[in-house]
Amino acid sequence: VTTLPAGFGCHVANVGVKDSTDDLLVIAATDGPVAAAGMFTQSRFVGPSVTISREHVQDGRAQAMVVVSKNANVATGPDGVADARAIVEGVASRLGCSSSDVLIASTGVIGRRYPIERILAGVTAVPSRPAATEAEAAARAMMTTDTVPKVASASIGDGPARVVGLAKGVGMIEPDMATMITVLLTDAAVSAAELDERFRRVVERTFNCLSIDTDTSTSDTAIAMASGAAGSVDGEELEAALGAAAELLVKQIARDGEGSETLIEVVVDGARDRTQAKRVAKSIVNSPLVKTAVHGADPNWGRVAMAVGKCQDDTDIDQEQVVIRFGDREVYPTAVDEAELGEISRYLAGDEVRIHVTLGTGDAACTVWGCDLTDGYIRINADYTT
Amino acid sequence: VTTLPAGFGCHVANVGVKDSTDDLLVIAATDGPVAAAGMFTQSRFVGPSVTISREHVQDGRAQAMVVVSKNANVATGPDGVADARAIVEGVASRLGCSSSDVLIASTGVIGRRYPIERILAGVTAVPSRPAATEAEAAARAMMTTDTVPKVASASIGDGPARVVGLAKGVGMIEPDMATMITVLLTDAAVSAAELDERFRRVVERTFNCLSIDTDTSTSDTAIAMASGAAGSVDGEELEAALGAAAELLVKQIARDGEGSETLIEVVVDGARDRTQAKRVAKSIVNSPLVKTAVHGADPNWGRVAMAVGKCQDDTDIDQEQVVIRFGDREVYPTAVDEAELGEISRYLAGDEVRIHVTLGTGDAACTVWGCDLTDGYIRINADYTT
Repeated sequence: VTTLPAGFGCHVANVGVKDSTDDLLVIAATDGPVAAAGMFTQSRFVGPSVTISREHVQDGRAQAMVVVSKNANVATGPDGVADARAIVEGVASRLGCSSSDVLIASTGVIGRRYPIERILAGVTAVPSRPAATEAEAAARAMMTTDTVPKVASASIGDGPARVVGLAKGVGMIEPDMATMITVLLTDAAVSAAELDERFRRVVERTFNCLSIDTDTSTSDTAIAMASGAAGSVDGEELEAALGAAAELLVKQIARDGEGSETLIEVVVDGARDRTQAKRVAKSIVNSPLVKTAVHGADPNWGRVAMAVGKCQDDTDIDQEQVVIRFGDREVYPTAVDEAELGEISRYLAGDEVRIHVTLGTGDAACTVWGCDLTDGYIRINADYTT
Repeated sequence: VTTLPAGFGCHVANVGVKDSTDDLLVIAATDGPVAAAGMFTQSRFVGPSVTISREHVQDGRAQAMVVVSKNANVATGPDGVADARAIVEGVASRLGCSSSDVLIASTGVIGRRYPIERILAGVTAVPSRPAATEAEAAARAMMTTDTVPKVASASIGDGPARVVGLAKGVGMIEPDMATMITVLLTDAAVSAAELDERFRRVVERTFNCLSIDTDTSTSDTAIAMASGAAGSVDGEELEAALGAAAELLVKQIARDGEGSETLIEVVVDGARDRTQAKRVAKSIVNSPLVKTAVHGADPNWGRVAMAVGKCQDDTDIDQEQVVIRFGDREVYPTAVDEAELGEISRYLAGDEVRIHVTLGTGDAACTVWGCDLTDGYIRINADYTT
């Protein structure tokens, strides 16, 4: 069991959003508002949760975050906005804080109103000082179709300050500015401005490098909150710990991607700049032909070549200079024989696969994460109707 | 049976590229070089077929096109270039024309050399004046994993001049400048410059609006040839006939997409400009969540809203102004009741589905085509290894 960092408590409950599993989570800073930073989806169809949280986190402080799961409250019109505001105000009233210090996030089905009476009734049971500290229970309350709760923790330097991260999300995941819902909590003392700057860098190289299915959620929300309860820390060590927790969460999300059986890590190096490396890496990790080849343990590197090749605006990429590897084994341009293909196939049948491409256009690199494409993905999204 | 337009003949044979089905096609203009135009993949991993054809069509004339199927001859190094040149020279020698008037296209597995001796032996059997005229047999010789040959024809105005189009392709299809392999033949008399201009416009609104799986082939080749045997025609009528044939081929390709059970047509109108309309339409037709919802006949319009929303740079899109329809039935913002959802579900279970989105940002429109995402796609690309 992972406990929340010092200075935070939570409340978890089932309020009947959809079924009898936990669907309401309130994470609260114990002693009033703390430094906070947020990053959100850039979707043109954002829901009111994102709109409200974006507004409330702008001043770099927050006291609590509410998560409602199993209904996204997106494309629900003015009623949906009123519902979200009522929940935020209800929680603020229970905690005795300003509603502008309460953030909200929500995921699940799009276009359906909350069962708002049930949720507001549930909110009246939120304690004035939430005292539960089990991170796994909190993460479980955020789940929609996730099969496992996603929790990661990291010490800052030698401690005692820590970072604890929670996340949810299995589909509709190609974050642009943030991922589904994730919250990174730390008991380190850090200014809001520094937290914001370090958090953005971390999200850019972790959550923004994740794609399950190329579909960008309407509800993506990433929040960082720092209680300060463990005192001040070295900034670089804080960023390293935030990054370590975020990377662990990203890998958990990729592993639990809808229908996923294999975590795919794509490393592109020898690139002109990081932007090029990321574009090529995303092209590979998002290619349904690459994803199905990994699923079938088929050492068909031609599909990786195709995915590199379709980055058509990268006219400096010369196929004669590109090197493709599965794991540590080069498959292009050095030809592999049948025996080696068999070994590579066995490697691809593992539960974590690395595709490594060197472009030969420079020195920059980027790592991205995704998963294979399986009949399980089709079953989850087609055969099971909403 | 569709016959080729006047002035063209073809030769079809099995030369043993992979199995015993036809794998070599030579289409030849009967009376020497004719007006020709070509559009090709922009992939950074193009094969020598594309490189050679791009060079040979540049002067706006060609006498013949060779298609080798079931092996793409891509990422095969200098040997692959020599192989392609040898085939082109062999065909030119049989036809008694300059090798610079012979085009070549090839699709199939990437990264494997041709069985070049067998192909060159087969080329020696090409008649000096190919006389076969059955378009379906020609299209069948181009197939790799296609399940049906793709042929379309259209009269130019009241005739007698015609356009006959052939195409192949079921996967790795999101053409950018052209699609897999397609050839449009006409017996109309038209200058190379006019043919080129009209052909480019037609390809832009047909093949370039098609996506099976977001993966762009290394081998895309679209060729137009005009024999002139039927005399001169009205230019607009020629373009209309080229467009009609191309659109029929595009729909056949989408229907035969790997694992495809449903043709999806996405119409986006009320857009700022055609570029915006196309970007949003492609976002919808490429969304795996939309594709699986159609497969499952799930009237989950929230996924269409998501796909519109993820066009994040289109900041003029206002979710309050967007209208979403399945077929002719509005599903957003006007709410639909359970009975209507049942009707929409039955509509989505049909073999052709239209998703119609009005953006409310202007007057421009674009139509694109794709297909659903099924367990058949996974089986074809994962369970069946190369």
